[in-house]
Amino acid sequence: MERIPILKMGEFLVVTIQVDMHDQLAKSLQDDLTNHITETQARGVLIDISSLDIVDSFIGRILGNIAKMSQVLDAQTVVVGMQPAVAITLVELGLSLTGIRTALNVEKGMALLRESLKATAGGNADGYARM
Amino acid sequence: MERIPILKMGEFLVVTIQVDMHDQLAKSLQDDLTNHITETQARGVLIDISSLDIVDSFIGRILGNIAKMSQVLDAQTVVVGMQPAVAITLVELGLSLTGIRTALNVEKGMALLRESLKATAGGNADGYARM
Repeated sequence: MERIPILKMGEFLVVTIQVDMHDQLAKSLQDDLTNHITETQARGVLIDISSLDIVDSFIGRILGNIAKMSQVLDAQTVVVGMQPAVAITLVELGLSLTGIRTALNVEKGMALLRESLKATAGGNADGYARM
Repeated sequence: MERIPILKMGEFLVVTIQVDMHDQLAKSLQDDLTNHITETQARGVLIDISSLDIVDSFIGRILGNIAKMSQVLDAQTVVVGMQPAVAITLVELGLSLTGIRTALNVEKGMALLRESLKATAGGNADGYARM
């Protein structure tokens, strides 16, 4: 069965979405990611969408769901590599990726995750996830 | 046009191959990778093939070509995430990935690249690529 690979880099997981997401693939990605987060105790998830020419409401909802699921498991999500045309279309269509943080590329996304981890470690040292 | 995204992580480039490689896609990946290596001055290339169920002679040759091209540009290549079944089939078919270094996963591949960089820096400090 087709699956999107999840790469572990230090305490972060990296996913590059290259193929058209259909229902089943999106569901298996959500399942795989939540399993990976618990298994590897990852603190952040980076999703690269640089090869997507279109981000419609379906993909937007999937990204939002992943971000929410990760947050419940105490991991931050950052979406990186959005093409300029995709950003324009998103705004023109009135689709706002609410609750999803973005960064220009993987390196900036990693930096964002590291900073938010530091902030969390300072203000929330009791280990509970913020909901 | 369909393209395989190339992620920059520090001084390494990371590519995850998820789709069936046809001639044109393989060629554009080779072009993109060599361009990225020169632009970013990357010292290593990590290719994740964990989502490939089959590695035939065509893909084997592409991986070999990428490794050779990278080496000319002074970057090491490591292929990671090969499925056990793929390794079995490769040996049974008599296909040996000559000239391609492999590692179990991305983290081990990164460690391998870092070590080989250190070794290169020690024994080859004049900056010339080894051919």
